[in-house]
Amino acid sequence: MSELTAVAWDGDAVRYLDQRLLPHEVRYGRARTADEIATAIETLAVRGAPCIGVFAAYGVALLRRTIADDGTFAAAVRRVRQSRPTAVNLAWAVDRVTAAADPLEEANAIHAEQVAVDAAIAEHGLELVAKGARILTHCNTGPLATAGGGTALGVILAAQRGGKKPRVFVDETRPLLQGSRLNYLELQAAGVDALLIVDSAAALAMKEQEIDLCIVGADRIAANGDVANKIGTYGLAIAAAHHGIPFYVAAPRSTFDLTIRSGAEIPIEQRAAGEVAAFAGARAAPEGAAVYNPAFDVTPGHLVTAFVTEYGVLRPPYVESIPTLEFRPAIGTLSSAHR
Amino acid sequence: MSELTAVAWDGDAVRYLDQRLLPHEVRYGRARTADEIATAIETLAVRGAPCIGVFAAYGVALLRRTIADDGTFAAAVRRVRQSRPTAVNLAWAVDRVTAAADPLEEANAIHAEQVAVDAAIAEHGLELVAKGARILTHCNTGPLATAGGGTALGVILAAQRGGKKPRVFVDETRPLLQGSRLNYLELQAAGVDALLIVDSAAALAMKEQEIDLCIVGADRIAANGDVANKIGTYGLAIAAAHHGIPFYVAAPRSTFDLTIRSGAEIPIEQRAAGEVAAFAGARAAPEGAAVYNPAFDVTPGHLVTAFVTEYGVLRPPYVESIPTLEFRPAIGTLSSAHR
Repeated sequence: MSELTAVAWDGDAVRYLDQRLLPHEVRYGRARTADEIATAIETLAVRGAPCIGVFAAYGVALLRRTIADDGTFAAAVRRVRQSRPTAVNLAWAVDRVTAAADPLEEANAIHAEQVAVDAAIAEHGLELVAKGARILTHCNTGPLATAGGGTALGVILAAQRGGKKPRVFVDETRPLLQGSRLNYLELQAAGVDALLIVDSAAALAMKEQEIDLCIVGADRIAANGDVANKIGTYGLAIAAAHHGIPFYVAAPRSTFDLTIRSGAEIPIEQRAAGEVAAFAGARAAPEGAAVYNPAFDVTPGHLVTAFVTEYGVLRPPYVESIPTLEFRPAIGTLSSAHR
Repeated sequence: MSELTAVAWDGDAVRYLDQRLLPHEVRYGRARTADEIATAIETLAVRGAPCIGVFAAYGVALLRRTIADDGTFAAAVRRVRQSRPTAVNLAWAVDRVTAAADPLEEANAIHAEQVAVDAAIAEHGLELVAKGARILTHCNTGPLATAGGGTALGVILAAQRGGKKPRVFVDETRPLLQGSRLNYLELQAAGVDALLIVDSAAALAMKEQEIDLCIVGADRIAANGDVANKIGTYGLAIAAAHHGIPFYVAAPRSTFDLTIRSGAEIPIEQRAAGEVAAFAGARAAPEGAAVYNPAFDVTPGHLVTAFVTEYGVLRPPYVESIPTLEFRPAIGTLSSAHR
């Protein structure tokens, strides 16, 4: 596991781990064109909002080197920027590299910042995890998802490193099984006591298995604390509230979109029917099945107990605590734009 | 679809549709021994609490014909009776046939009663379904699950036949996908406007898709209205309550176990890790993944808006309405024991 690298600059290409093939096969791809970069994101070979941001940053830096014509470059950047609509990190990273004097240096800075930011999130999150805590989590939020140390899973891995020996209930996260394929893999590699569950067993686990807290990542967070995250997060948050279990969201400042007031403004990506109607090539549903397949849902801020950010833990009222993020100094390597 | 028959008496065997192979392949098995009968139930080739009851009834009738020795017969009956711990219909049907003067006549009566009971459930359930209603359901509760017309899905199919044109959101129902494989198949065959969703999308569907009601079946119901049903039912009921959406449970009297006061007394079957770690031969999780795989959960009666039974709709307080079931006359063919 330790040798798995989600994203890396490779001279004349951006190297990426094809996460669709995990846990069975470790295969790296090399993206060289806007189309290859966008396709890697669209097909979820590269996934996880922060990881997409780092990947796209390197991608745009590469395109700036390979495309001389400004109009062609702008079109290529648009292609990359629009490859997934929900993750805010993508547009943020693309815009930052596009505007930078030295695009590659900026991409490197974004990556280094991600590592520093994740470390700070993990450190702040530790205060929420008691020794022997039983934790429920959803989707993949580890190093594979961020190209750093992870967000929600970063907190859990830090708790394990700190000797807290958490017991973790891992939602498999249908339809694409990021929980069973990726989160479980990362937990297993770290020696964490982890139990895989189907997503719909989470409520029973909360009731019967003495879950102490839930912690998840986020794809976009509005100024009022509404959270877009992997489909299923909303139902989990409702169940956690029902059981009086704290529900935490771990995310860097780059995931907060202060330009939107509420989750109602977050576009929810609808993905292909085949993701639900089949699994790993095995067809599950009858031919011609109609499918409703939103990739994300929006959890209202009032169901979130606290946000774990690189600047510390944010508590309600979020309309007051979240906007303070805007004025915080950057963590990690300063971007070239700020030097 | 109309030619699919879940269970049938076959002279020297009990014929059953192997539901594990649906929707891809229609293959019938023939069970002749206690071991074959119990294995068909244990492996979920035959599944759905009422269907298991009808199958086991025919099975015990067959064993009574093929096993002369009373001790051997009693051991064979025990083997069948213990093949699944949660479904109350199994023990109920086995005991009834075992005690009957003419076991095959009793098994036929149980089957005929199931058909009549399901028809009555569907009729009573219709009053809860408005024209054009948007309905969310979980697991498979159609003719394949009951060997009759179905319980929760029976209500939906009756609404379709009655011109109400419901729109149905179908939980895929991990880990064994009874929703996508069976419920969707039955809805599709009936021409119902049905949309398949992953289980964890149910809460978002409730919020965004104007769901009017949820209706599910049950494996066992305690005297206070606590409901054991397919894993995921509990989380659905919590989410429905959160959204103010009625949550109905459709089940025959035989599913109510008036000998237990609450759901705390219902044993929850833990099933094999492989059901979660893989699907249709495709491995999802890393080798050695530990799994928590309860087949059922218990939904407290206070989250159930009403029960739809063959005698009508039961409303709270359930400690008063449910015990009245004990004194109702049987519906359908009278059992030989009562003639």
